[in-house]
Amino acid sequence: MECKAIMKEYQILTDKKLHHYLDVKEDKNKTVIDAMRYSIFAGGKRLRPIVAIATYNLFKDNLEEVLPYACALEMIHTYSLIHDDLPAMDDDNYRRGKLTNHKVYGEGIAILAGDALLNYAFEIMISHARTQSNANVHLQAIEEIAKAAGMNGMIGGQVVDLESENKQVDKNTLNYIHYNKTAALIISAFKVGAIIAEATETDIAHMNSLGKNIGLAFQIQDDILDIIGDEKKLGKDIGSDVENNKSTYPSLYGLQTSIDEVKRLTTNVDKVLNIYGKRSRFLHDLSHYLVNREV
Amino acid sequence: MECKAIMKEYQILTDKKLHHYLDVKEDKNKTVIDAMRYSIFAGGKRLRPIVAIATYNLFKDNLEEVLPYACALEMIHTYSLIHDDLPAMDDDNYRRGKLTNHKVYGEGIAILAGDALLNYAFEIMISHARTQSNANVHLQAIEEIAKAAGMNGMIGGQVVDLESENKQVDKNTLNYIHYNKTAALIISAFKVGAIIAEATETDIAHMNSLGKNIGLAFQIQDDILDIIGDEKKLGKDIGSDVENNKSTYPSLYGLQTSIDEVKRLTTNVDKVLNIYGKRSRFLHDLSHYLVNREV
Repeated sequence: MECKAIMKEYQILTDKKLHHYLDVKEDKNKTVIDAMRYSIFAGGKRLRPIVAIATYNLFKDNLEEVLPYACALEMIHTYSLIHDDLPAMDDDNYRRGKLTNHKVYGEGIAILAGDALLNYAFEIMISHARTQSNANVHLQAIEEIAKAAGMNGMIGGQVVDLESENKQVDKNTLNYIHYNKTAALIISAFKVGAIIAEATETDIAHMNSLGKNIGLAFQIQDDILDIIGDEKKLGKDIGSDVENNKSTYPSLYGLQTSIDEVKRLTTNVDKVLNIYGKRSRFLHDLSHYLVNREV
Repeated sequence: MECKAIMKEYQILTDKKLHHYLDVKEDKNKTVIDAMRYSIFAGGKRLRPIVAIATYNLFKDNLEEVLPYACALEMIHTYSLIHDDLPAMDDDNYRRGKLTNHKVYGEGIAILAGDALLNYAFEIMISHARTQSNANVHLQAIEEIAKAAGMNGMIGGQVVDLESENKQVDKNTLNYIHYNKTAALIISAFKVGAIIAEATETDIAHMNSLGKNIGLAFQIQDDILDIIGDEKKLGKDIGSDVENNKSTYPSLYGLQTSIDEVKRLTTNVDKVLNIYGKRSRFLHDLSHYLVNREV
C-alpha cells in the first residue's frame, strides 16, 4: 500500500512539472503542441520518472532537483512510442486504450510531435543545467540519458526490433533488442537519480546494476503479458506480438523459462538493495511492482 | 575565388570531423548507422557549419573549438531533411540528386535514422561540453541550438508548412514558416560561433541580426530558385513547390518583389558587417554567395 502511495506522489510531482513544461505560449505551431500534450497526458504510468525520483531520494530529499530529468525521460519515452506506433513501424492503432498519435493527428504531425518531444527533452535539461552551479554533474546526467536514448541504446534496439519482424531471431539478437529498446532508458533513469544526488561512483554502479536487472525483467515480463495478460487492463491488443510473428523471450525459451528468468533477475535486484537496508524499502517494492505487474 | 577556397577549407574541416563522429563501432544497429551516413555524406554543402566556423573565426582562430557545434548543426539539418522527405510530409524521391533516405532504407529506418541524428547531435555537444572548463559557455551554445531546432523554431516551421500545403496562406503565416523552418537554425549557426568564441553580448546580437537577414533572404532565394532554377544543378524537381500548390514568397508577392526583398535584406547584412571592417571579408562574401547563389 505504501509503495502505491509513494508512486502516486511521484506521479503527481511529475505530472505537475510536465504540465508546467507543456503550458507554453501557443503560436501557429499549436497543432504540434497539442499532439505533444495528447501523448504525454495519455495515461502513462510515469515509471521512468518514478525510478529517477526514487534513486535520487535514496541519497537526497530535495526532489525538485531531479524533476527536469524525470520529465525529460518521460518525453523521450513518449516520443519513442509515438514513432514506434507509426504505420512504417509497429502500425498500432491504440496505445493505453486511446488512439495512437498518428490516428488522431495524422502521420506527418505525429512524426514532428515525436521529434519535438525529443528536442524539448534536451532543451529542458540544458536550460536547467545552465542555472546550476554544479554544471558538470548535470552534464553527466544529460550525457547518460543521451547515450541511453541514442543509436547505441534505445534507437539501436528499435532498429533491430524493426528488422527482426516476421522472422525468428537468435538469442544474441533478442538480448540486444531487450537490452537496448527498453532496458537502456530504464537503466539511465536509475543512474540519473543518483548522479543528480551526487552519489558516489560505487552507488551509481549499484544503480546501474539495479537498472540492468529490472530493465531486462521488465521487458521479459512485457513479453509474458502479451501472451497471458488482460487485453482491457493492458490497453493494447493481446497477442499482437504473436500475430506480428515477433520473436519474444517466451517464443524463444518457452513461458516457464521466461518466468524463471524474471525471478532470477529479481533476486539480483534484492541482493543490491540489501546493501542500502531499510531506506531502500520503496525501491524494493517498486522493483517488485515493475517486474510482477499484471498489466 | 578566395571565398570559395575558404568555404572549401571549412567544408573539409567539417567533413573530417563528421567522419570522425560517424566512424563508430558497428553492432547489430549497423543499418541505422549506414542510413545516418548515407544522408550526412549525400553531398550537403555544409552551409550551417561554414557559417558557425566563419563567425567563430571573426573572433578567434582555434577552429577546432567550434567543430562539434558545426557538426551538430549539420546533423540536425540532415535529420530534418530526412523526415521532411517522408511520404507523410513532402514525399520527395530525390534530394541533392540522390534517392532520399526512405527510398533507400525504407520509411521505418529513415524515421529512426532522423531520430538518431538529432539525438547524436546533442550527445556530441554534451560530451564535448563535459570536457571543457567553461561549461556555461558551451551550455549557452547548446541551448541556442536546441531552441532553434525545436517546436518554437525549426519543428514549428515544419508543422505550419505541412498544414499549409494545398492552400493559400497569409503573409504572417508565410513569415512564420520562413523564419522558423529555415532561418532559425541558420541564425543559431551565426550566434553559436560567436558564443563559443566568447564574443561580447553586442557581438552576439550583431550575429543574430546577420542570421535573421541572411536566413530570410536564403529562404526567399530558395523559393525563387524553385521557379527559375536549373533542375540538374539544384538536384531536385524544379517547380515542385508550384506543383504541390505551396505558398511561397514569389507566389504571394510576385517574382520581382521577392528579388527586391532579397536585395533589401542583403543591404541590412552589409550594414552590420561594415562594423567589423576588413576581417569580415569572408562573412561578407559568404553572405552574398548564400543569398545570390544560382543553385
